[in-house]
Amino acid sequence: MSADSARARTLVHTEPVEVSLQVALDALADPVRRSILRDLAGHDDWTRACGAFDLPVTKATRSHHFAVLRAAGLIEQRDDGARRLNRLRRPEFDQAFPGLLAATIDRAD
Amino acid sequence: MSADSARARTLVHTEPVEVSLQVALDALADPVRRSILRDLAGHDDWTRACGAFDLPVTKATRSHHFAVLRAAGLIEQRDDGARRLNRLRRPEFDQAFPGLLAATIDRAD
Repeated sequence: MSADSARARTLVHTEPVEVSLQVALDALADPVRRSILRDLAGHDDWTRACGAFDLPVTKATRSHHFAVLRAAGLIEQRDDGARRLNRLRRPEFDQAFPGLLAATIDRAD
Repeated sequence: MSADSARARTLVHTEPVEVSLQVALDALADPVRRSILRDLAGHDDWTRACGAFDLPVTKATRSHHFAVLRAAGLIEQRDDGARRLNRLRRPEFDQAFPGLLAATIDRAD
């Protein structure tokens, strides 16, 4: 098994339709996570690597935020060499929670 | 000063337009508070007293939840004798946070 596939194994994703409103709201009720989502909303899919985000947190906290966003069905991640790329799961999250992203990340804090 | 006006003095309200998205999301990210808001959404203004809500929490926790909802601009309260009546501030909250109530309390958890 390559190092890349070993890393990829650790990436657990949740489908938005499987996510409860409570988990979705908990994920969105954090300013750092909203800043990540707004950043992704402003870029094409799979063009933003985790390391590219300018976040005022430690590396461990950064990893935690991305894990929370995956578990809430808000982002998808895949490894590309040393980079972990991200995609906002907008269409499928919007279908599961109509209007919630519009009301939270399509506006300023 | 009457007992009623002494009680009423403690009722601090915040206008929705003065509320941050963070405070609004924190208020909505609690299942007991969402159940209070859904209950109010299903009744006419000023017809629901605090004591009428069937909530699985202590009286102190109940008071805390109502205070959080006031501070987030989500409810208005006024005392009527021994009863504290409630109103969902739907029009003004919707104006400050378009679509947020629709995405959270107009659906099931």
